[in-house]
Amino acid sequence: MANPVLVELTRGRWVESRHRGAVAIADASGRLVWSAGDVDRPIFGRSALKMLQALALIETGAAEAFDVSPEELALACASHGGEPFHVAAVAAWLARIGCDESDLACGAHAPANEAAARALLLEGRAPSRLHNNCSGKHTGFLTVARRLGVDPSGYEQPDHPVQRLVLAAIAEMAGLDRASMPVGVDGCTAPAAATPLRGLATAMGRIADPSGLSPARTKAARRLYAAVRAHPLYVAGTGRACTALIEAAGGAASVKTGAEGAYVAVLGELGLGVALKIDDGAGRAAETVMAAVLAALEVVDAGHPTIAALAEAKVLDTTGRVVGARRPSAWFATELNGAVAKIAG
Amino acid sequence: MANPVLVELTRGRWVESRHRGAVAIADASGRLVWSAGDVDRPIFGRSALKMLQALALIETGAAEAFDVSPEELALACASHGGEPFHVAAVAAWLARIGCDESDLACGAHAPANEAAARALLLEGRAPSRLHNNCSGKHTGFLTVARRLGVDPSGYEQPDHPVQRLVLAAIAEMAGLDRASMPVGVDGCTAPAAATPLRGLATAMGRIADPSGLSPARTKAARRLYAAVRAHPLYVAGTGRACTALIEAAGGAASVKTGAEGAYVAVLGELGLGVALKIDDGAGRAAETVMAAVLAALEVVDAGHPTIAALAEAKVLDTTGRVVGARRPSAWFATELNGAVAKIAG
Repeated sequence: MANPVLVELTRGRWVESRHRGAVAIADASGRLVWSAGDVDRPIFGRSALKMLQALALIETGAAEAFDVSPEELALACASHGGEPFHVAAVAAWLARIGCDESDLACGAHAPANEAAARALLLEGRAPSRLHNNCSGKHTGFLTVARRLGVDPSGYEQPDHPVQRLVLAAIAEMAGLDRASMPVGVDGCTAPAAATPLRGLATAMGRIADPSGLSPARTKAARRLYAAVRAHPLYVAGTGRACTALIEAAGGAASVKTGAEGAYVAVLGELGLGVALKIDDGAGRAAETVMAAVLAALEVVDAGHPTIAALAEAKVLDTTGRVVGARRPSAWFATELNGAVAKIAG
Repeated sequence: MANPVLVELTRGRWVESRHRGAVAIADASGRLVWSAGDVDRPIFGRSALKMLQALALIETGAAEAFDVSPEELALACASHGGEPFHVAAVAAWLARIGCDESDLACGAHAPANEAAARALLLEGRAPSRLHNNCSGKHTGFLTVARRLGVDPSGYEQPDHPVQRLVLAAIAEMAGLDRASMPVGVDGCTAPAAATPLRGLATAMGRIADPSGLSPARTKAARRLYAAVRAHPLYVAGTGRACTALIEAAGGAASVKTGAEGAYVAVLGELGLGVALKIDDGAGRAAETVMAAVLAALEVVDAGHPTIAALAEAKVLDTTGRVVGARRPSAWFATELNGAVAKIAG
């Protein structure tokens, strides 16, 4: 059965485009508090898994051994915009563990941040692997390899000791059997695990309320959750949705986008995790759904400018006139209200 | 009911994202030769309507009176990339009708062509309205206003004499009642008409086989169809899908993309029109569907590199390794084969 329409784009009085998808909200026990659509089919969370991929950085003692700062922990969980402060921080971290750009397995791509991309171009410099939005995650992997005392080369392969730890942590947090968890290759060459939204929301719920986890994992989850909320600019960057939503939540939540329409949230005060996937992979719709969920659960004030910009976005013509809107579908808005009543009750 | 999944993106052995949509293939009589999904719900064809919007340019005698060249006719039907030759041609055409950039109602945006955008940036120049992908269409509207002898100001308003002609032509070609045809505002400020895919495919079928139209419209349709096939670089630009597909068809077809996942084709030799819309607005999926349709109907050889690049596209990681694919869904591929058998029979 087709997933429900969660987001609509209008032009004038008419609906122009529709995005279908699924959403799961779960607690640390794996209880599905609310859902829409199919939350049992495995989906690729892509970069929305980064907090889970960073658990090993703390659990192995790597972060402790190499004095990894909260900003660096945030970078390990980030899809950063390649702004100068991101790039400088990754380079300094790499140097501290005796590595450099050439040790990164990710490829180079232009910074997602437009000003940073423009500046590189005007300086006549090519983007480097440091600009790859995943360079912090990869530096985290290299730090784990250093801590384990293994050859870091091939650290992005699923059977490398680093990725064995990383994939095991993802499966455990999502309540899955590692052996049957689908694993593809991500855009940055690292393993890309697929998890049902139910499991991904549970994993995020376990970061929100880690009290039932092992002591080492409890500590790791708390440190990562604290780091991303303390340094939202390191999680994404200037003007990016994740940064804006974490800032808007004022300590009550962290969020993380993933390519192809994935998005997760950790709602610490509610002890809940959120995971969603837009069927067609559209990031614009994922942002609208996440903003609507955060507003409905009152994690962010519905009147906050970030919510207005993402959940009820204006569609403009090239002269700046409003010609349409991007918004939750009427069905989804109604269902969300029901969810809130259920969660509050 | 939900439209069928037409396109899938895979990662490894798994499907990562899915695009739903609808496709209509019709002849000049309005007979639906084949379809998939809902072809009766009005959709915004956006820039896929440009050939219809350009009919008035010839029918009013404006093209004749102002020596509009085949390249300029192609630009009137174009979403161009803002390459230097596009911009120079629009500027020269505007000058010839006694207008300039300030008469264009469209806003400025950076060229879609990356090299052109980069060059502007390195020269320290801001994009102008001439770079707007619709500047050729707008210059066509201004040329009609000149020919009619009316004040060109406000030419983009639906009740301006120019747009009355343009909207009437769209409705007639699509077999619709003008008064009940939804009209929003396009990204370039011009009216955006909505038509069912059935009607849009019929309109394209009437360009493919204009023999049943009025003599003036027959002539206009033939000239536009000839112009876009003779000058595909003016219809889109270097490396763009429309240009590549028209070139690959070697005179047997013209195609035109529209924002939010619309795409049309005129298949002159078959006397058929094609119209499609991806529900979620994804251009990548629209390109895959159009390429698959053209290959199935043998308008373009299935082994042509353009078909390989669009219909069975590779998904790469940032180091260039193939990690997935974008391709027609198995259902759609099978249905298309059925369509071909039916059309051939």
